[in-house]
Amino acid sequence: MPKISDKGRQMPASPIRKLVPYADKAKKEGVTVYHLNIGQPDIPTPESMIRAMHELDQVVIEYSHSAGMLSCRRKMCEYYQKHGIKVDPEDIIIGAGASEAILFGVMTCLNPGDEIIIPEPFYANYNGFAMTAGVKVKPIPSSIETGFALPPIEEFEKAITPATKAIMVCNPNNPTGYLYSAEELEVLRQIVKKYDLYLFADEVYREFCYDGSKHHSVMNLEGIEDNVVLFDSVSKRYSACGIRIGAMISRNREVMQTALKFAQARLSPPSLGQIAAEAAMDTPDTYFEGIIAEYLARRNTVVEALSKIEGVICPSPKGAFYVTPRLPIDDSDRYCQWLLEDFRYDNQTVMLAPATGFYATPGAGKKEVRISYVLSVEKLRKAMKCIEMSLKVYPGRTA
Amino acid sequence: MPKISDKGRQMPASPIRKLVPYADKAKKEGVTVYHLNIGQPDIPTPESMIRAMHELDQVVIEYSHSAGMLSCRRKMCEYYQKHGIKVDPEDIIIGAGASEAILFGVMTCLNPGDEIIIPEPFYANYNGFAMTAGVKVKPIPSSIETGFALPPIEEFEKAITPATKAIMVCNPNNPTGYLYSAEELEVLRQIVKKYDLYLFADEVYREFCYDGSKHHSVMNLEGIEDNVVLFDSVSKRYSACGIRIGAMISRNREVMQTALKFAQARLSPPSLGQIAAEAAMDTPDTYFEGIIAEYLARRNTVVEALSKIEGVICPSPKGAFYVTPRLPIDDSDRYCQWLLEDFRYDNQTVMLAPATGFYATPGAGKKEVRISYVLSVEKLRKAMKCIEMSLKVYPGRTA
Repeated sequence: MPKISDKGRQMPASPIRKLVPYADKAKKEGVTVYHLNIGQPDIPTPESMIRAMHELDQVVIEYSHSAGMLSCRRKMCEYYQKHGIKVDPEDIIIGAGASEAILFGVMTCLNPGDEIIIPEPFYANYNGFAMTAGVKVKPIPSSIETGFALPPIEEFEKAITPATKAIMVCNPNNPTGYLYSAEELEVLRQIVKKYDLYLFADEVYREFCYDGSKHHSVMNLEGIEDNVVLFDSVSKRYSACGIRIGAMISRNREVMQTALKFAQARLSPPSLGQIAAEAAMDTPDTYFEGIIAEYLARRNTVVEALSKIEGVICPSPKGAFYVTPRLPIDDSDRYCQWLLEDFRYDNQTVMLAPATGFYATPGAGKKEVRISYVLSVEKLRKAMKCIEMSLKVYPGRTA
Repeated sequence: MPKISDKGRQMPASPIRKLVPYADKAKKEGVTVYHLNIGQPDIPTPESMIRAMHELDQVVIEYSHSAGMLSCRRKMCEYYQKHGIKVDPEDIIIGAGASEAILFGVMTCLNPGDEIIIPEPFYANYNGFAMTAGVKVKPIPSSIETGFALPPIEEFEKAITPATKAIMVCNPNNPTGYLYSAEELEVLRQIVKKYDLYLFADEVYREFCYDGSKHHSVMNLEGIEDNVVLFDSVSKRYSACGIRIGAMISRNREVMQTALKFAQARLSPPSLGQIAAEAAMDTPDTYFEGIIAEYLARRNTVVEALSKIEGVICPSPKGAFYVTPRLPIDDSDRYCQWLLEDFRYDNQTVMLAPATGFYATPGAGKKEVRISYVLSVEKLRKAMKCIEMSLKVYPGRTA
């Protein structure tokens, strides 16, 4: 039997996926499992998107342009214009989700062996894309003590080597929910300019900002227009994760022309998803108002409940739909598995994501979990009660 | 401005794409351009697929399983069963088109620097996937004199080095339409077994076989079950290229478990496409009977017309919807551009794919073009007339 590749052997398995069989077993036993482990929102997909499918009038569902349908890219430009970001259709390549867009960006800009600096904890799948491209992730620590704010400029400078080619941020952040301020973006701007690095930014949670705070896009940082590559998602924004429509966006023409060659090699992004995405972008702003209010209530429910538990530290993040609290536990992988295997409260339990998967530094994240608040306030209350009760009896409880 | 990657610089641009501006210009001038350059069939997408979208009843369009919806993979198994191929849902990972599936396969099985032997001419985008994975393509020649049959076993053995990890075939072939016989597959089986290589097979045109000939799948080659990886497409088969649903299939569990990690890193294949694909697989066999008859008539139209032209050699391939004739021309890139820029017959011209893009050997394919017979017989007649007339006046005509 021929050997698989070294990349294949080293490709990280998701720590969440390892828990799936335990969750399945619990459910088979009739236990209610609250899924706070993934970013699959329960918010209904906008009616306009479903209607676009109901009214589909194509005779042949054809390939689209490799960069995506021009009509869809134009709609995206209108959307960005509303958010104060000026881009042309030529600045956009539509991908099968932000995932594919990120892969295009990494393949286009970085050579195997190059390094990319990412504040950790960070979205676990960045590891997968880096592995695919043969690129090395250099994590720099953000800390729960500052609510996971951007690490100070010295941390970036310490991590920079001749192999450093890019900095990647996720704003608002997955898994911490942290929203970077204008001042923090200015820090990024300076360091990117000084060392002439790429600045990759994953802004798929742009709309999800709370407490009156404002999102600042890397696309509006002056003087580094050729360095900035934005990754975005339509599917995530409109609670239609399955349509797989994301985008890579940059004003750097050489980057976009090169990325297009990777896009052409796979011919076309999904056409049905693009038709739905185009319809989605006509969704009125009021759609988000209701959703933001709902997520805010959810965040408050989670943060308030967790903050009352002895030994738990939970920042109140201003964005996305994630929090990453610190718990009084020995090992988050062990704790999350134990919740599914051995813990029941009123025949209920919770599925959480161990934060270890969001750190590149070995051993980091053992006391943290990621909670996606993608369930109703009522369910979240019950789930938080489960966490509270579980920490009273978890055998690996620490001070 | 930061430098783009070496891969980006070396990533081949599609020779067809270079022609698009010339085709657009001709069309703007009111010229009828017959598009024989891409494999985008004009056959209507089955009604069942459109209906599945019209009847979409999801409230939230969610991520599917990273390997694809279980119901869709089960339907695929039924489909393969009908074709005499026994596979389980666990043997299947659904990708965003066969393109993504091929990338998963290459990333899973080959290390950067490893070599993959591919008879040329071959589907141009294999170059892109190899480049992405850092893998080296070693072409071995198939020849128009034998109708592009499988190269003899000695050619494979000459090309094998310690770095050789896989052989890739496309059957029926894109761009030649050649359908491999049972004997040719036996040659592949022997060499794969002898050197313990992976055998990658792209069988997306399985249904498109003519003259009563039968398709033989690599999945039924005995004794190399762990070596075989099949790439397939639902979108292509059912003339729904835009849904982007393909698959990577293997009975090698280690390969599939590893490929799943790459699939998990991008979360999910397109859900809407999977719903349409599942509906497609209920299409009755009679659907293909009509289509095969239509393609056969088209192939005959093209082959007969081309064979009558002095200096043209055109095999009559038994599969897919492509032919790659040899023309009395100096340079297929130049000829194809000239057709769009300078040649008009009755205010019509044709867009063809220069075969140079289907060869990895520098300079090869200069006298060949790929013709996709994806238009009606009537249009193909007119297009062939254009080619005939063009060869009388093309300045780079050779003997």
